[in-house]
Amino acid sequence: MKKEAFILPHDQHYFCGHSLGPMPIAAKKSVDQTLTAWEKDAVLGWTNDAWIDLPHHVSEKLAPLLGAQKTEVMVGDSTSVHLFKALMSALNLNPERHVILTTDDNFPTDNYIAHGITAFKPNITINAVKPETLLSEMDERVAVLLLTHVNYRDAHAFDLHEITKIAHQKNIITVWDLSHSVGIMPLHLHEVGADFAVGCTYKYLNGGPGAPSFIYAHERHLTHLISPIQGWMGHQRPFAFDADYESHGIAQYLSGTPYLLSLRALAGALDVFDGVSLDTLHQQSLEYSTILIQALRDMGMDVVTSETHSRGGHVAFMHPQGYALSRALIERGIIVDYRAPDLIRICVNPLYLSLGDIHDCLSQLRLLILNQTYLAHSYQKKVAVT
Amino acid sequence: MKKEAFILPHDQHYFCGHSLGPMPIAAKKSVDQTLTAWEKDAVLGWTNDAWIDLPHHVSEKLAPLLGAQKTEVMVGDSTSVHLFKALMSALNLNPERHVILTTDDNFPTDNYIAHGITAFKPNITINAVKPETLLSEMDERVAVLLLTHVNYRDAHAFDLHEITKIAHQKNIITVWDLSHSVGIMPLHLHEVGADFAVGCTYKYLNGGPGAPSFIYAHERHLTHLISPIQGWMGHQRPFAFDADYESHGIAQYLSGTPYLLSLRALAGALDVFDGVSLDTLHQQSLEYSTILIQALRDMGMDVVTSETHSRGGHVAFMHPQGYALSRALIERGIIVDYRAPDLIRICVNPLYLSLGDIHDCLSQLRLLILNQTYLAHSYQKKVAVT
Repeated sequence: MKKEAFILPHDQHYFCGHSLGPMPIAAKKSVDQTLTAWEKDAVLGWTNDAWIDLPHHVSEKLAPLLGAQKTEVMVGDSTSVHLFKALMSALNLNPERHVILTTDDNFPTDNYIAHGITAFKPNITINAVKPETLLSEMDERVAVLLLTHVNYRDAHAFDLHEITKIAHQKNIITVWDLSHSVGIMPLHLHEVGADFAVGCTYKYLNGGPGAPSFIYAHERHLTHLISPIQGWMGHQRPFAFDADYESHGIAQYLSGTPYLLSLRALAGALDVFDGVSLDTLHQQSLEYSTILIQALRDMGMDVVTSETHSRGGHVAFMHPQGYALSRALIERGIIVDYRAPDLIRICVNPLYLSLGDIHDCLSQLRLLILNQTYLAHSYQKKVAVT
Repeated sequence: MKKEAFILPHDQHYFCGHSLGPMPIAAKKSVDQTLTAWEKDAVLGWTNDAWIDLPHHVSEKLAPLLGAQKTEVMVGDSTSVHLFKALMSALNLNPERHVILTTDDNFPTDNYIAHGITAFKPNITINAVKPETLLSEMDERVAVLLLTHVNYRDAHAFDLHEITKIAHQKNIITVWDLSHSVGIMPLHLHEVGADFAVGCTYKYLNGGPGAPSFIYAHERHLTHLISPIQGWMGHQRPFAFDADYESHGIAQYLSGTPYLLSLRALAGALDVFDGVSLDTLHQQSLEYSTILIQALRDMGMDVVTSETHSRGGHVAFMHPQGYALSRALIERGIIVDYRAPDLIRICVNPLYLSLGDIHDCLSQLRLLILNQTYLAHSYQKKVAVT
């Protein structure tokens, strides 16, 4: 769909866009521009290279991909830090209640962040439940519902619209982690009325390793938000160096000086989405992943991603020799990832992959299974990244 | 001293190293290396380009510049976010007391962060006092003393050793902001027993625009620290995706995925300090700034930096037409900065500047004052960055 906008790893089929998107040409150019500004203008880059406007500029570019108003989105810190801010703000909006409800299969950092808050707010408790019991657990003690839209293991997607509606009926504030859905699924945060959201920009948004994340808050909350980390970049007049903090709206979530080189890569990467319909992209992604799911199942694989359910962009299957199999595929140029103890994830992102890539992936996988060569490898266990 | 290690802005004398250090050649190379890894290896860069080790690697390189043990320092988030973590951890270590003592001339973001905490911990109050009354305000209500080592306006340096000692006699935990001292003054945090510190890496450490900052905690606190933002990168085994957070020591202050492009610039920039003695650098800096202070005073300038006091790397003077004067100097290639309403700051960093630069600066300044040409300029007010 936009393959020409990327520099894809040479001689490889890159199926890890759910973990780290490949490099958009515009992202590299954008970083080079800032390196040049640093070199030639140094501190004058703040105005000459518009560093001062960059967080706002990137946030405005990102907003349509979230179905958000431009005034509802801010990029800056990591997803973990943003999630902390969102949870603290959300708890503050529901002060009579003391439970954060989440699922026990949530991405671990989300629940670590929630637990970290309880160390400083001992009246808050976390209730991490099985996803299937979620609705029945949404009772009058729940202040905040913390959910990851698309599960990082099986790609299962919650019905964001429906769950937000039910939460609101029960006076629960929602905090969504969109790390595995933004950039591959259409989102309508403003219309749905979702309260808060955070998400990663280095997966489907291809913002580069460690790209800064975003935070979203619905406009109805913007006038009475309190951010727990009130830094100078969020001040109405950051360069006035006023003694008192004064900030309005989503800018409150800007804390310190933006990570400009990293942020600039994201600024360039978002250009790739000019003219891309997320509805079309998601539809194409579903077609590809359905083909993959069925083929894997025909090979006898234990596929954990369901083609009959709403889902994100990757497909996962379990295999007893998952680690060895993933290493063997990578050696053959089929870049997939592995999650302990036995999960392999494959992401066919139509932005830069097509049917041919799927066929090559399946061919290599069939050969390996047939020959059992991967079992002969004594691969050392190594880590991999979500 | 290390001029050959930098690419200095062409045809300029760069006196803003207290705001944004110029580009070290090694920083650019280091970023380029990571861009190449992203391009060629994408997600495999985590191992092939050692991204996973980068925060630890950079922290270990930085530790000697702080006079800290390698296990006491962690780079990652912005100074604002780190300051929030340090203050929350410090308050937690002194739970019977409820006052954060600071100065009313502290860098604004430091006091914003402290005030932000009171919104969520209403039993905490901030006491921002005149620096000269600091010692008498250090009473038994004070939990945490929050001080910036070197003042961002007049470069005045507190006696870090002496004040830490007094604070400890009064059972007060110290949190130092070293943004304007790290990289230009010798520091001995471990030996002095300083409890916590944070600081900026894009000023005297030349880490690039928006380079990630550092946090330090003395080793005696490391076994019973609690970080308020418990993210996955600080986990003992980040890639095990355990349900429970488990972290020890300084790594707790790692929250989300590191801002790798920005962090890589810092990694390269720190190479410049190989073989540099901070004692020698500071001594040379004092000699230069004394020359500058005396020459400015001879010109009748209202110099606010005292040559008889311990100080950081810049010199500041007040001038009724400070803004116009700073713009006129910049137009003539003398890059200084301006702080409202009337302050001009000049930083002579011996890492890349020498006596010749000072003479050129003074010559241009004398010409402008003599001819009063700067008054003829109708410069628009613009912002500048600390």
